[in-house]
Amino acid sequence: MDLKSKIRIIEDFPTEGVKFKDITTLLADGEAFKWTIDKIVSNLKDKNITKIAGPEARGFLFGNSVAYAMGLPFIPIRKPGKLPAETISYEYDLEYGTDILEIHRDSIEKGDRIALVDDLLGTGGTMKACCEMLESLGAEIAALEFVIELSYLNGRDKIEGYDINSLVKYD
Amino acid sequence: MDLKSKIRIIEDFPTEGVKFKDITTLLADGEAFKWTIDKIVSNLKDKNITKIAGPEARGFLFGNSVAYAMGLPFIPIRKPGKLPAETISYEYDLEYGTDILEIHRDSIEKGDRIALVDDLLGTGGTMKACCEMLESLGAEIAALEFVIELSYLNGRDKIEGYDINSLVKYD
Repeated sequence: MDLKSKIRIIEDFPTEGVKFKDITTLLADGEAFKWTIDKIVSNLKDKNITKIAGPEARGFLFGNSVAYAMGLPFIPIRKPGKLPAETISYEYDLEYGTDILEIHRDSIEKGDRIALVDDLLGTGGTMKACCEMLESLGAEIAALEFVIELSYLNGRDKIEGYDINSLVKYD
Repeated sequence: MDLKSKIRIIEDFPTEGVKFKDITTLLADGEAFKWTIDKIVSNLKDKNITKIAGPEARGFLFGNSVAYAMGLPFIPIRKPGKLPAETISYEYDLEYGTDILEIHRDSIEKGDRIALVDDLLGTGGTMKACCEMLESLGAEIAALEFVIELSYLNGRDKIEGYDINSLVKYD
């Protein structure tokens, strides 16, 4: 499957000079979408994963189906104020300003082996935040799975030491 | 499957007096989550569905897996400014104020038979907005699938005439 051909490039989104990788065209191709999920699932088998987690909202668009396909729970990591029960929060730096993510405190048990799934690895900031939140709750990060990796942003440096996989790389 | 037992009730969220139906406990039970998706898929077979669509963000947590399980495309309906290509917008009334949803114009072809999936049918406002956007692009709404229906909000009245299914009702 030539997955790159399914991803649309949008010039100057969200800001001038950015070549945005649009995964909605991949999702709009039922065969390519299924192939993508099955590929991630095949990367994760034999890793004794207990739960799949993913950040709002594009992480839901791949992580949710990976969880279903593996018969595993899906743990949503969300923007502030969206999760109704007791949460822990994590504030992290963006290029300009900061962002906050939240997770339900009782969604993780000590010893859980988590696979995090997201659409894209950029600078790695969001993923590092997700890893640290999960680890602070006693989970082990068993794998990080991305559909797209923007290699030139060196996100792997920020999340060094984890088992990282991406299906499509842009240099 | 006693699905209701998997849904957690949170008192006074997001505002006082509301008994919020928390679907993260359902998602956190791999077996219950799989059962839920398989039930929706079984409701949809023999309906000649061409695409699954769902609104951000909780609609993604069920619609995405339904699309995967059926080998169909998933069309995300999003908050303003999130979709990178040409969109159509739809503004609709909430109890206080208004909300806006967007969909990629080229995500729908004339004659598409869409199943819309969301976590919850409340007043029906969001779902009516989704139906009208999709229909304005030439799609036919073949089914509306909800995990939860708050019967006392009479959402069915607002989306009368569609094929509506819900797995769990609260009177």
